[in-house]
Amino acid sequence: MADKIFRVNMADLTTSIEDIPADWAGHGGRGLTSTIVSAEVEPTCHPLGQNNKLVFAPGLLSGTAAANSGRLSIGAKSPLTGTIKESNSGGTAAQLFAKAGCKALIVEGLPKADNWYSLALTPDGVTITEEKELIGQGNFAVVQALENRIEGKHGLLSIGQAGEMRLASANISIKDPDGSLRSCGRGGLGAVMGAKKIKFITVDPKDGKVAIAKPDAFKDANRIFAKALVDHPVSQALGQYGTNVLTNIINESGGFPTQNFTKGQFEGHESISGETMHDTIKERGGKVKHGCHQGCVIQCSQIYNDADGKKLTAGFEYESIWAMGADCCVDNLDHIAEADRIMDDIGIDTIETSVAMGVAMEAGVLPFGDGAGICKLLTEDITKGTGIGRIIGNGAGSVGRAFGITRVPVVKNQAIPAYDPRAIKGIGITYATSTQGADHTMGYTIATNILNVGGKVDPLTKEGQVELSRNLQIATAAIDSTGMCLFIAFAALDDEKCLPALVDLLNARFDLSLTGDDVVSLGQHILKTERAFNTAAGFTSADDRLPEFFYNEPLPPHNVVFDFSGEEIDTFWDF
Amino acid sequence: MADKIFRVNMADLTTSIEDIPADWAGHGGRGLTSTIVSAEVEPTCHPLGQNNKLVFAPGLLSGTAAANSGRLSIGAKSPLTGTIKESNSGGTAAQLFAKAGCKALIVEGLPKADNWYSLALTPDGVTITEEKELIGQGNFAVVQALENRIEGKHGLLSIGQAGEMRLASANISIKDPDGSLRSCGRGGLGAVMGAKKIKFITVDPKDGKVAIAKPDAFKDANRIFAKALVDHPVSQALGQYGTNVLTNIINESGGFPTQNFTKGQFEGHESISGETMHDTIKERGGKVKHGCHQGCVIQCSQIYNDADGKKLTAGFEYESIWAMGADCCVDNLDHIAEADRIMDDIGIDTIETSVAMGVAMEAGVLPFGDGAGICKLLTEDITKGTGIGRIIGNGAGSVGRAFGITRVPVVKNQAIPAYDPRAIKGIGITYATSTQGADHTMGYTIATNILNVGGKVDPLTKEGQVELSRNLQIATAAIDSTGMCLFIAFAALDDEKCLPALVDLLNARFDLSLTGDDVVSLGQHILKTERAFNTAAGFTSADDRLPEFFYNEPLPPHNVVFDFSGEEIDTFWDF
Repeated sequence: MADKIFRVNMADLTTSIEDIPADWAGHGGRGLTSTIVSAEVEPTCHPLGQNNKLVFAPGLLSGTAAANSGRLSIGAKSPLTGTIKESNSGGTAAQLFAKAGCKALIVEGLPKADNWYSLALTPDGVTITEEKELIGQGNFAVVQALENRIEGKHGLLSIGQAGEMRLASANISIKDPDGSLRSCGRGGLGAVMGAKKIKFITVDPKDGKVAIAKPDAFKDANRIFAKALVDHPVSQALGQYGTNVLTNIINESGGFPTQNFTKGQFEGHESISGETMHDTIKERGGKVKHGCHQGCVIQCSQIYNDADGKKLTAGFEYESIWAMGADCCVDNLDHIAEADRIMDDIGIDTIETSVAMGVAMEAGVLPFGDGAGICKLLTEDITKGTGIGRIIGNGAGSVGRAFGITRVPVVKNQAIPAYDPRAIKGIGITYATSTQGADHTMGYTIATNILNVGGKVDPLTKEGQVELSRNLQIATAAIDSTGMCLFIAFAALDDEKCLPALVDLLNARFDLSLTGDDVVSLGQHILKTERAFNTAAGFTSADDRLPEFFYNEPLPPHNVVFDFSGEEIDTFWDF
Repeated sequence: MADKIFRVNMADLTTSIEDIPADWAGHGGRGLTSTIVSAEVEPTCHPLGQNNKLVFAPGLLSGTAAANSGRLSIGAKSPLTGTIKESNSGGTAAQLFAKAGCKALIVEGLPKADNWYSLALTPDGVTITEEKELIGQGNFAVVQALENRIEGKHGLLSIGQAGEMRLASANISIKDPDGSLRSCGRGGLGAVMGAKKIKFITVDPKDGKVAIAKPDAFKDANRIFAKALVDHPVSQALGQYGTNVLTNIINESGGFPTQNFTKGQFEGHESISGETMHDTIKERGGKVKHGCHQGCVIQCSQIYNDADGKKLTAGFEYESIWAMGADCCVDNLDHIAEADRIMDDIGIDTIETSVAMGVAMEAGVLPFGDGAGICKLLTEDITKGTGIGRIIGNGAGSVGRAFGITRVPVVKNQAIPAYDPRAIKGIGITYATSTQGADHTMGYTIATNILNVGGKVDPLTKEGQVELSRNLQIATAAIDSTGMCLFIAFAALDDEKCLPALVDLLNARFDLSLTGDDVVSLGQHILKTERAFNTAAGFTSADDRLPEFFYNEPLPPHNVVFDFSGEEIDTFWDF
């Protein structure tokens, strides 16, 4: 079955299936969402208005047996940043979109009536149904209700109360194989879905399968590729401790942002570390190792139980733990897990929301260290849409503006995640130049700055950082198009067999003869497409800067500032 | 006594008096504040941070006997718009700054300690004093307390609770001759003063006087100039009905934005019109006619009493009455007056705050028409800094973002005032292209579009609007530098003796030989200086646009949209 473009117009509640334009054929995942958004969305449009579009695209290898290929990209103009946005996630949806023959789903327009809807996607197209029962409910209630409503396996994407309220930090949640949630977290795409009045989307590929042009070659390449992933020491650490293996490592580096980015080390780091978490999970009978989609060989996810042995949260990530932990000075892992569960339920980005809490703590809304207070604000204020709830639910920049705070760690209004750019300078270049606002996943220099993967670039000096970030951002844009999890990058950087095997997978899937150079060209092309959108939306190099305080306030313990000039940052785009 | 630059550094609590740099000598008022901000403020700095500066400058003719020359300009990078900002006001301060020999007061830095201060300016310089008693108090309490504290006449500039909270709509209030308040209202300059922890500034020129190079020529020119002002029919209407004479006129034109900019006429317009207000004031023993500064020959201000004959508010302007009235569908003038009084007291821009209320009404925070609800929100929420209070107190854009509303009438995040750009197209060009965000005073095309002053340009067609706005914006930038009230523009446009007399006043004051062409060049230079600042701050032509809904939603009764292309708008800058 040839892949198609599925289109839904919410203005007149019509749907269609279209052939793939020639320009789009070579794209998947982020490359495709960014291509479609650039082609069809007016860059100056209001992100929540009738002219924005929400685009879903599985990666080029999603739905195949290729290891770790289960990422779904979602794109739009972001209500948080005003830039183009792509956010990708695991869960079962990418594989099911691909198996349903859907290369991309484009949702456009706004409903005229004040109704809510759901979409059901199958190989035959999309059905739009009015939804009443689940409006106002959290994501877990949606998962549960649909388990009862729908027979058989299905993919599910939904928004919680945050998306319904069109909060700029609202995410889109994707069900994983165990009914836990993964999130397309960054940039407020849940608010775009909420503006379009879509509560959830189900995906049922029926007996659809992804065609492989050269099955034997594919199988061979996948064997080499999966082995490279499994063998890499970072993959192994991720499997053992989850992404939270980073807490002790980043704290040790002095780049672990603490107390709203005023310090680079957190006294309570041991209490929230991956090692502590691992032991706690074991004690309480949770799951230390867990994959967010079928075919994952790294398994960095886990299930974290409460003291009574009852499941509290899953997919409990380093960035979330850092943000509610060190940045808010909370050293109680159970409070952090509870907050993580609530945020998954109401469908809001854990990074953005927790960094916003840190700024709110600086503004005196609640004291630093008050983990129970965070949970209460989430439940009583954000879920209910009170004034302070909306201020925090619209992100760190929103809190800064509401309270006139100047120490607000955002770039293009998106919260800076778990690596301080003063002490880990490469990531600062990524934050500044990313087409999507501050986002570590856009060019994860931590690999080389801290983990010594792909070589070593001293995190505390300026030398080599721009080039490092550039190379990683280009590679990431390409990886994000394949449907591959970003964690293949460690093996790709260190194991010379990994990247050629990935190219072989693409060639075997589509009967192509791509080379590594083609992959680099693809990444460059995606970045330039995204940047052109942003430029037309009104962004300039003045937006490719970190907030003023990173230049003025030295970060202990290294007592360093971010010291790149604007001209130095701008050389990033010399390619 | 030669004029000097007075400088205050709040970081180390030092002050100095400096000679005027040659480049600044020919400037006053807005020309000088914009020149200084451009020269000394990093365009990308945080408006509330240590690198922004707050600049106060009387006009070139302020402090002289020239009619209507009592405007003070205040400039900074705006926390509301992120652009350069100049906001000017009457009151006694401009004349007293000039008489004290202060050509400009520059306040820089942020205090290190968590204390509040006041500044006292005399010809000998500025004294910084720690202030405790008045912190947390409204402007009227400050006025009253200082009447008791200080002997003799003094000028006073202060911030209310809004400025202390650094809300982006906070204004700086200036005492008028009767102890009422005038406001440098737009762009949140009160938040910059609050960030610098200055509660108020007193000005005492002692026996200082402004030197006039050619007193007889000055007197002759002033006689001609004042006669031109007094004779113009618009001046006379302003004296009789205040600026609120416009309510019936703009309503009749179909460009009177109603119910958050969904209609162009307000059913309740008669209840809030200038004519009704005039009769009500007369009945209740208020003052129909009143000047905001000595030497005003137009006297558009008034004192509005409540039903018991007690003073309720003063300087009750058309834009405030429109915004709380038609835009919020409130047809009770006493509610509007009460809200106006509260806003003067807490020190917040009436336009921005009332337009924000209209957006909040659309979001369901309170019903349209609820004047008592507006007063309660002002008193209970904005004054106290609750969540919803901060959302509204940060302006219309803030409310739109908090609630995910797309019909948000702002340009560069500043609220659009009382003239709908769909039905009065010239003003739409001013809103779009102004260097300061949406601001009718930057190029008041209403004069020619509606009042037939300076000719006639049909408000409903595109022809001639860009040129009209350009000419008026250039002229306004120059007028704003002289210290003249903008209302001299009506006479200047229609009476051929007026503008030459103004040039003669400048020549006689400084012993110059300027021509009308020099005035145009000055205006052009100021606009280009301001635009260069904004460009360096990251603004592009994409920011010189109206919100999407003006292009998509026809405005009744004319059922027109704003139909200028981006390219057409951008021709504004062809000079």
